[in-house]
Amino acid sequence: MTSRADGRADDELRKITLTRHWQDHPAGSVLVEFGRTRVLCAASASEGVPRWRKGSGLGWVTAEYAMLPSATNTRSDRESVKGKVGGRTHEISRLVGRSLRAVIDYQALGENTIVLDCDVLQADGGTRTAAITGAYVALADAVAHLREQGALKGDPLTGSVAAVSVGIIDGTPRLDLPYEEDVRAETDMNVVMDGAGRFIEVQGTAEGAPFDRAELDALLDLAAGGCADLTRIQAEALGAARS
Amino acid sequence: MTSRADGRADDELRKITLTRHWQDHPAGSVLVEFGRTRVLCAASASEGVPRWRKGSGLGWVTAEYAMLPSATNTRSDRESVKGKVGGRTHEISRLVGRSLRAVIDYQALGENTIVLDCDVLQADGGTRTAAITGAYVALADAVAHLREQGALKGDPLTGSVAAVSVGIIDGTPRLDLPYEEDVRAETDMNVVMDGAGRFIEVQGTAEGAPFDRAELDALLDLAAGGCADLTRIQAEALGAARS
Amino acid sequence: MTSRADGRADDELRKITLTRHWQDHPAGSVLVEFGRTRVLCAASASEGVPRWRKGSGLGWVTAEYAMLPSATNTRSDRESVKGKVGGRTHEISRLVGRSLRAVIDYQALGENTIVLDCDVLQADGGTRTAAITGAYVALADAVAHLREQGALKGDPLTGSVAAVSVGIIDGTPRLDLPYEEDVRAETDMNVVMDGAGRFIEVQGTAEGAPFDRAELDALLDLAAGGCADLTRIQAEALGAARS
Amino acid sequence: MTSRADGRADDELRKITLTRHWQDHPAGSVLVEFGRTRVLCAASASEGVPRWRKGSGLGWVTAEYAMLPSATNTRSDRESVKGKVGGRTHEISRLVGRSLRAVIDYQALGENTIVLDCDVLQADGGTRTAAITGAYVALADAVAHLREQGALKGDPLTGSVAAVSVGIIDGTPRLDLPYEEDVRAETDMNVVMDGAGRFIEVQGTAEGAPFDRAELDALLDLAAGGCADLTRIQAEALGAARS
Amino acid sequence: MTSRADGRADDELRKITLTRHWQDHPAGSVLVEFGRTRVLCAASASEGVPRWRKGSGLGWVTAEYAMLPSATNTRSDRESVKGKVGGRTHEISRLVGRSLRAVIDYQALGENTIVLDCDVLQADGGTRTAAITGAYVALADAVAHLREQGALKGDPLTGSVAAVSVGIIDGTPRLDLPYEEDVRAETDMNVVMDGAGRFIEVQGTAEGAPFDRAELDALLDLAAGGCADLTRIQAEALGAARS
Amino acid sequence: MTSRADGRADDELRKITLTRHWQDHPAGSVLVEFGRTRVLCAASASEGVPRWRKGSGLGWVTAEYAMLPSATNTRSDRESVKGKVGGRTHEISRLVGRSLRAVIDYQALGENTIVLDCDVLQADGGTRTAAITGAYVALADAVAHLREQGALKGDPLTGSVAAVSVGIIDGTPRLDLPYEEDVRAETDMNVVMDGAGRFIEVQGTAEGAPFDRAELDALLDLAAGGCADLTRIQAEALGAARS
Repeated sequence: MTSRADGRADDELRKITLTRHWQDHPAGSVLVEFGRTRVLCAASASEGVPRWRKGSGLGWVTAEYAMLPSATNTRSDRESVKGKVGGRTHEISRLVGRSLRAVIDYQALGENTIVLDCDVLQADGGTRTAAITGAYVALADAVAHLREQGALKGDPLTGSVAAVSVGIIDGTPRLDLPYEEDVRAETDMNVVMDGAGRFIEVQGTAEGAPFDRAELDALLDLAAGGCADLTRIQAEALGAARS
Repeated sequence: MTSRADGRADDELRKITLTRHWQDHPAGSVLVEFGRTRVLCAASASEGVPRWRKGSGLGWVTAEYAMLPSATNTRSDRESVKGKVGGRTHEISRLVGRSLRAVIDYQALGENTIVLDCDVLQADGGTRTAAITGAYVALADAVAHLREQGALKGDPLTGSVAAVSVGIIDGTPRLDLPYEEDVRAETDMNVVMDGAGRFIEVQGTAEGAPFDRAELDALLDLAAGGCADLTRIQAEALGAARS
Repeated sequence: MTSRADGRADDELRKITLTRHWQDHPAGSVLVEFGRTRVLCAASASEGVPRWRKGSGLGWVTAEYAMLPSATNTRSDRESVKGKVGGRTHEISRLVGRSLRAVIDYQALGENTIVLDCDVLQADGGTRTAAITGAYVALADAVAHLREQGALKGDPLTGSVAAVSVGIIDGTPRLDLPYEEDVRAETDMNVVMDGAGRFIEVQGTAEGAPFDRAELDALLDLAAGGCADLTRIQAEALGAARS
Repeated sequence: MTSRADGRADDELRKITLTRHWQDHPAGSVLVEFGRTRVLCAASASEGVPRWRKGSGLGWVTAEYAMLPSATNTRSDRESVKGKVGGRTHEISRLVGRSLRAVIDYQALGENTIVLDCDVLQADGGTRTAAITGAYVALADAVAHLREQGALKGDPLTGSVAAVSVGIIDGTPRLDLPYEEDVRAETDMNVVMDGAGRFIEVQGTAEGAPFDRAELDALLDLAAGGCADLTRIQAEALGAARS
Repeated sequence: MTSRADGRADDELRKITLTRHWQDHPAGSVLVEFGRTRVLCAASASEGVPRWRKGSGLGWVTAEYAMLPSATNTRSDRESVKGKVGGRTHEISRLVGRSLRAVIDYQALGENTIVLDCDVLQADGGTRTAAITGAYVALADAVAHLREQGALKGDPLTGSVAAVSVGIIDGTPRLDLPYEEDVRAETDMNVVMDGAGRFIEVQGTAEGAPFDRAELDALLDLAAGGCADLTRIQAEALGAARS
Repeated sequence: MTSRADGRADDELRKITLTRHWQDHPAGSVLVEFGRTRVLCAASASEGVPRWRKGSGLGWVTAEYAMLPSATNTRSDRESVKGKVGGRTHEISRLVGRSLRAVIDYQALGENTIVLDCDVLQADGGTRTAAITGAYVALADAVAHLREQGALKGDPLTGSVAAVSVGIIDGTPRLDLPYEEDVRAETDMNVVMDGAGRFIEVQGTAEGAPFDRAELDALLDLAAGGCADLTRIQAEALGAARS
């Protein structure tokens, strides 16, 4: 039996840290760490909505994911300098936005916009799931901020959101893959769940050989456990008084 | 009980048509139709591989998905004129490429490149799954073309690939959604499978409320049946003599 | 004397096909074929005009020409991926738009916009002239559609438009050049005419040696005959009941 | 009968000035003036050819046309700031390049590249024809410069090139249109000819009503006379000793 | 002691020429020459201000600097073709705009916009300082033009602006560096001053070794003298009747 | 007399913190804080140099400055999404690169490249001077890393670099301006100095009224003191053992 390089059990998360109020300016700002993966999640709230939504009485939530050039093993080129956003960045930004919108009641949000910026400061696998997990906490802080300002028409949060990666490495299903496991995974899956244990997004990809239904089931079970742990950690972080 | 607007059973595909050799120039060219959804899939083969792969002895397969401005209900802007590829286009191009690469043996392909262009001529839901299903047939034709030219080192196709969309509409799981069902779906899932019934990619999204494990299971069952049907239709199309 | 590879007389068009209603969504949609050249011409009508024309009571017609990567002999790069529209594409889009606008009465069109998308599905010479010839039929269908909706203030079509290429190959003037003649032509001319046999646009280019007035005259005669034939074929297509 | 605002006869050119050696750096540099239209034409010569032509023994000539923001009646936006070259600019750049290449013997030029930059400093109609007429003189100077350096394998210039605009204003064909006539022209034609009076490019456009063969013939006659005059003025300028 | 290649004293400007009304269209248009450096400075005035300033009662002044491809020793690529403005161009455009805005009273200007286009026709060192010096004269002409039209609410010019480069070459501080001195300078400084001898902008850069306070002081003295001379030349040019 | 909002003396720096090894991947990584301004400076070292420098035996150092959207008071748009780098970003990137290159001996560096990424995580004035100050420490760490690898031919660091902003607020010269002072400053100056107290770059701008020589002198004195303090803090940080 192969054990994990960092000594974790197969169904164990890396050390998870959620540091709220990391920045001064945005309504919500959380530094989330999944082991050595470090993502700064900021939720900026502003009055008004995009043009196509004006006058609807509904709010809007969107997300942008990006990575610092220095976040990766080998320095990556800056997308602003290349003059275009890459496909992977686009894909993850859309995933993060979709995931958080799944727990938003636009009516209660009113015509306000919240932009979630997830900037990866250090990448060691699982940046998109860390981003979603941290963005939820930043979103909750931003919603609280809007509530204090009397800008809301109800409670726009219909639930919480957490996400985790799972994968099969050397035939073994494992939770929360660091980079070195991620590159070796035969199958790789990102699962986004709400606090009630229901699915918001499931994305499974055969990196090596196609996978069967039994493997898929094992991965979903593992992810459900991980998301439940993350939900608890989020609740604890949000329960804590502001430092 | 709500029945479908087009009279189909919930587990029934739309009329599927695969027209091979639709264009003269590419090594493979297939017009695929899922009901009124019409995608032109071309497989262009060329000697050589991208720079980062030169000298490896390995081939390369990549894909580009796009939509004609006139393909949609309301005319959409041309991405070339906007000067950038949109997030949705990026995301689907990557999905198509990844799906087809799952059945490619790069060693057997040798240092050849196959580009799969999937251009949507008419959109009525399920364009990405139609694109994958048609692209596999175009890919098979392109591989046959390379074989005739003696350009291969073995059989680069390790299996076949088909894809279908499934979703829950008014609480009922349904197969192969046209546009009018797609926009109403609470949950929407795209499933890519190989000819042996194993998963290559699973992408499920809660469009309305989050979904539970039972719903997920029902959708996967439905998709497995649909992909099996598509696999048979692909085999028939490839078995037919060239018109 | 050299005869043509496809057995045509020097003043004979290739087989011309105009298939109306090829797509479901646009107000007009025509697949035009000049031999193996195949262009999908869609006319999308919408209420309103560009900002600079608002309140003028005048309509607007514009065109975009493009080519599928798989349309050409060797796959061409996608302009959306390159991030910019090439010079040739720009030039032809402008030509198509100018040509069709020559038979439009903006007053009668009222503040409506018609966008003509001409997408080349297969290229074998003469794509721009096929595009113009097909776009006229799509435009006529879109105008009829607007008339049915009661959106017009009169008859916006002041005439019909057809276009054909002519060239001198091995000293002989020829009509409607396929690709293999086009690349060998010493002089190449595209002529756009209205249904009354008057000129809308004349573009002649010395590809090899400069040409004299007698050669120019011979080419114009040849083009006039070809455009007259195309005008008749357009009228027949538009006279036919919808299949 | 309407006479011209500037008192010219209908077949008379504006005052034409060709100032050679206007800049110090390029191998050829000519400020050409057609009345108040002022274009700076520079011919920069360099060793080597674009990658696709390397090792062929053949040279290359290309052109870029552009307009200063301050050249026009109302300031126009800078294309570098907009981040893309407009359709009109592309179209004219291609016309200028094609026109000059018509008198180039690539074999004699050897593997050298000449880039013709035509920058409009002031626009008053006919900028593209002035650009071509001036670019020929700059090209001749650049060729002479290469000859002095012993970089040529023969005489790369097989003829001279001049261009002029003609148009029908209030029913009268006129030569060399300034802006105020250009905007009123029913038909507008740009004609590029070689020094022997043969056609290199003919571009006629119906701006108002379509035009008939008799009108086309009248315009071509007028243009032939104008180009002959320009050819003479070019020869005089090139005969003059360097100031 | 090293003397200068062009025979000037170390504290002597090159021959300065200011030609007003060089173009017909802009409200102000000045060709400025610092020796062989030649910059066309146009000031285009228009009613209205950018959106973010509307209704403020305040005017706006901005600048765009650019270089013709043929202006430099070796032809440089066109930024419009590259699709982006380079860092150096951005930096200088901002410097020119900032420098001229330093002498503008926005209240007196009223809701009018003046755009300063500084296009380098020939580069021989000091293009940015020539641009600023010429732009001031064009600005003064544009302001006079607005005054004649009764479009002003007071005198928007609170002073004059001139600029010059200074540098240390082989240990000697020198004024107004041509290209061949500029590339050899150990320290390079651009100084922008108003007509009263006060500083608007000071930009000093150690090209070779860092410089000390004494060297900095010597350069500032030299620049002050040069700017005083330029201020006088500007006043003379503006005092002259229009040719 | 007006005192500072944060209680500092006019010639006193904000609290300066330099945290080395903040990231795992780059050769040098420093989080620099000037009060609430927080910039992550990474120095990525790689073998080889840009193409134009190959074979010269010389190394290369370059810098890219950027700001997170959430770093500012009001969220700013992402440059990658806008598709271009703004003028301010370009200007500062160039300043940072130039400043660090002033203390580099390319010969000793050998054909290695160091890229300095300065990403502003939180902005409260003085981000460019904090970036330079922190980048020097990251650069020193990267150089040490290359030395350990035996990749150097000598000591590429010829000195240290620090930078600080100074300005005149309500007539009083002050050191190290936070955002609220920066926006109110009549004159604003950024000064880059080496460890020996010599100038590398001086950039002074009149934001309000032009400034005279006495004011300039006072600001330079203030900056010299601040840079001396920063030099000491840098030395201490670099002297500390790795935590």
